[in-house]
Amino acid sequence: MFDQPMRPTSPTIGSDTPTARTAPSRPRVVIVGAGFGGLTAAQHLAGWPVDVTVIDRRNYHLFQPLLYQVATAGLSPAQIAQPIRGILHGAANVRVLMGRVGDVDTRRRMVQVDDREVAYDHLILATGARHSYFGRDEWEKYAPGLKKIDDATEIRRRILTAFELAETEDDPVARRRLLTFIVIGAGPTGVEMAGAIAELARRALARDFRRIDPRSARILLVEAGPRVLAAFPEALSQRALGSLRRLGVEVKLGVPVSAIDADGITLGAERIASATVMSAAGVRASAAAKWLKAEADKAGRVKVQPDLSVPDHPEIFVIGDTALALDPSGKPYPGLAPVAKQQGRYVAELLRARLADAPAPGPFVYRDWGAMATIGRNHAVAHLFSRYMFGGLFAWLLWGVVHVMFLAGFRNRLTVLMDWMWSYVTFQSGARLITGGPRAP
Amino acid sequence: MFDQPMRPTSPTIGSDTPTARTAPSRPRVVIVGAGFGGLTAAQHLAGWPVDVTVIDRRNYHLFQPLLYQVATAGLSPAQIAQPIRGILHGAANVRVLMGRVGDVDTRRRMVQVDDREVAYDHLILATGARHSYFGRDEWEKYAPGLKKIDDATEIRRRILTAFELAETEDDPVARRRLLTFIVIGAGPTGVEMAGAIAELARRALARDFRRIDPRSARILLVEAGPRVLAAFPEALSQRALGSLRRLGVEVKLGVPVSAIDADGITLGAERIASATVMSAAGVRASAAAKWLKAEADKAGRVKVQPDLSVPDHPEIFVIGDTALALDPSGKPYPGLAPVAKQQGRYVAELLRARLADAPAPGPFVYRDWGAMATIGRNHAVAHLFSRYMFGGLFAWLLWGVVHVMFLAGFRNRLTVLMDWMWSYVTFQSGARLITGGPRAP
Repeated sequence: MFDQPMRPTSPTIGSDTPTARTAPSRPRVVIVGAGFGGLTAAQHLAGWPVDVTVIDRRNYHLFQPLLYQVATAGLSPAQIAQPIRGILHGAANVRVLMGRVGDVDTRRRMVQVDDREVAYDHLILATGARHSYFGRDEWEKYAPGLKKIDDATEIRRRILTAFELAETEDDPVARRRLLTFIVIGAGPTGVEMAGAIAELARRALARDFRRIDPRSARILLVEAGPRVLAAFPEALSQRALGSLRRLGVEVKLGVPVSAIDADGITLGAERIASATVMSAAGVRASAAAKWLKAEADKAGRVKVQPDLSVPDHPEIFVIGDTALALDPSGKPYPGLAPVAKQQGRYVAELLRARLADAPAPGPFVYRDWGAMATIGRNHAVAHLFSRYMFGGLFAWLLWGVVHVMFLAGFRNRLTVLMDWMWSYVTFQSGARLITGGPRAP
Repeated sequence: MFDQPMRPTSPTIGSDTPTARTAPSRPRVVIVGAGFGGLTAAQHLAGWPVDVTVIDRRNYHLFQPLLYQVATAGLSPAQIAQPIRGILHGAANVRVLMGRVGDVDTRRRMVQVDDREVAYDHLILATGARHSYFGRDEWEKYAPGLKKIDDATEIRRRILTAFELAETEDDPVARRRLLTFIVIGAGPTGVEMAGAIAELARRALARDFRRIDPRSARILLVEAGPRVLAAFPEALSQRALGSLRRLGVEVKLGVPVSAIDADGITLGAERIASATVMSAAGVRASAAAKWLKAEADKAGRVKVQPDLSVPDHPEIFVIGDTALALDPSGKPYPGLAPVAKQQGRYVAELLRARLADAPAPGPFVYRDWGAMATIGRNHAVAHLFSRYMFGGLFAWLLWGVVHVMFLAGFRNRLTVLMDWMWSYVTFQSGARLITGGPRAP
């Protein structure tokens, strides 16, 4: 239990004094997960008469939309991650706990964190999702997904190591396998990964090797569905496909992957040898449904009420990628950062109304400002306000501005912007390090 | 074997054409290690009629003098590491191999790299040193040293995790242990580490926690010898000691560490509980002496001739931390970056003279421009031209200028400078990420 303050006279923690803390009137809000949803909820509860505890198993908030640039050596991890404590240090009624949640006792209203328990009056679960292999978990070691920083540095290690090994490989068949890179899944992450690997090979690495020509690398983007960026209008899918092909990415649509192993993949009946396979295909929600013993869909998402609370538990909310929330037409909201952020804000506002005995807001409705995906230098597609669609240089600039704007921390914004401008001018990439893993013990 | 070029018609590789390659007159120079010594040698052989192969088990050159700032969350790894291929890509007669050297066959003149062999006519071994535990190798897991990027991110993980665990710890004794940080060895690295941890605790982290006060952390610098910075003049040691104490570092001199285990250290008869112990004490040279079956000193350094060649092997040179080279008075040169760089340049010039049948240069003599160590914000000590000594703000500014100047790569210089200025103004540190390790699986 973490309820006794230990620095009662500290000058820096504002209302977090013994009087305030032991006053029975301050409800305890526990938020699990400091991704887009959880962090936004915490920020919108800052300064209100509640004691908020944010629990995350990592000490940083990660800006996942740019994680693929860490995986492809464009950015450093610290540029897209910000310590949670740093973001929330001005919020005196919010404390941060680093720990792993293992279960929730909904009867006693306790969250189990490592070997301790944290009590709540209101609980917000924003625990996100992981990549999924549709039941083929053994594929993970051959085709890692991209959700965490350690995933990204591992993928970076594999990509850069493949070029290094190809340089010393005498057998042309083995060399071909080393220079074949496969990305599975052509959603935004897959498209962005494939485009970034192509640019790395064709530009940043082009002059660095003596025996191989990195420009000859084969980059495959493989998708079981009929088109890339299936969540976008068909015209933008076509446009993105054209940009990918011009970048030299081979796109294979409509054929599912039937096997992945150490030597490569099987695509329908075709065998493709590759040393570096990445998965950007499926996601699976966190274990929140299991903790709550709540109803979930096939992807593990908790079915929530229109106000994002869990049936029969008005004190528990599930938001972001872990929630199956339906729009007014009955369609599930997609697992996107803006959805999670709006849900975090909505729940904070609902709690504030509830605490003030004010009327509750109406059901959650997502305001769709738009979606974007970048393919490479000067190429992106954008679909704004569910109406306007465009691609090319302007979409690419807009993509850059929006992503820098939403990054947490002024310094990160500045250094990411600088690195992008630098890479744009020099065609170089800044973080081509092989760290960790068996090759660099 | 790596002798057949595979891109004979590539327009980018200049003289690296079949004609040039197969001409019997081009001697093969193999350089093992792309640290300060090896890289400098390669740069001074660029453009000369030799075929140079640089072998390193990593793909980057590391600017070790700033590694402690990665370990203390000030800088990101990519800011102090530069891909070797990128540095040397303009040198058409130099190729880079990523691989691990396991042995040297001096009779057949072959270097064994992984499961292959590379032939040489001249060999330069610049394989550096690792930390040493004076025969107590079991200490390494409790007190990691600081030589590689993965060491630095591991130490960063341990330091930041200790604060996180202390925040959730109820037992005051256990909390004290978590907030006690011990650095063993008060050479430049140890002094810089201890100072940086103190600043991290007192400034960057001070406002981020609710239950603990990071400013109460105990930082110990432990040294068996009688003073800190033993390689500097006594007056500067005194000055550094004063600066360390003002920063809140407890310095214990003259008592050797007699035990290190999971709970802390034993210092003489005193037991000090600590969750985070780091070693900056001893170094041990790489295995080069073993490969060559050459005479070595206790630290494993190969005894070299005045021209840095190995006795009876005028075609083999050992430079940098792996070499025991003596100055004109018979004293060994210290293991410093400038020594390694001057030796790399010397050997390159000697080889160029040898190939041109010009008279060989005289024996290697180190030109000592000076040494510096920084303690923290506004505090450093400098000893220049073996004559001038000073400390304080001016030394600190000079230290910063020199270190930025010697960093490889314009972008790294720029971003390091920006990060330093940012931290100076805001008291924040930029890379406070807990990655890797058992806490973030």
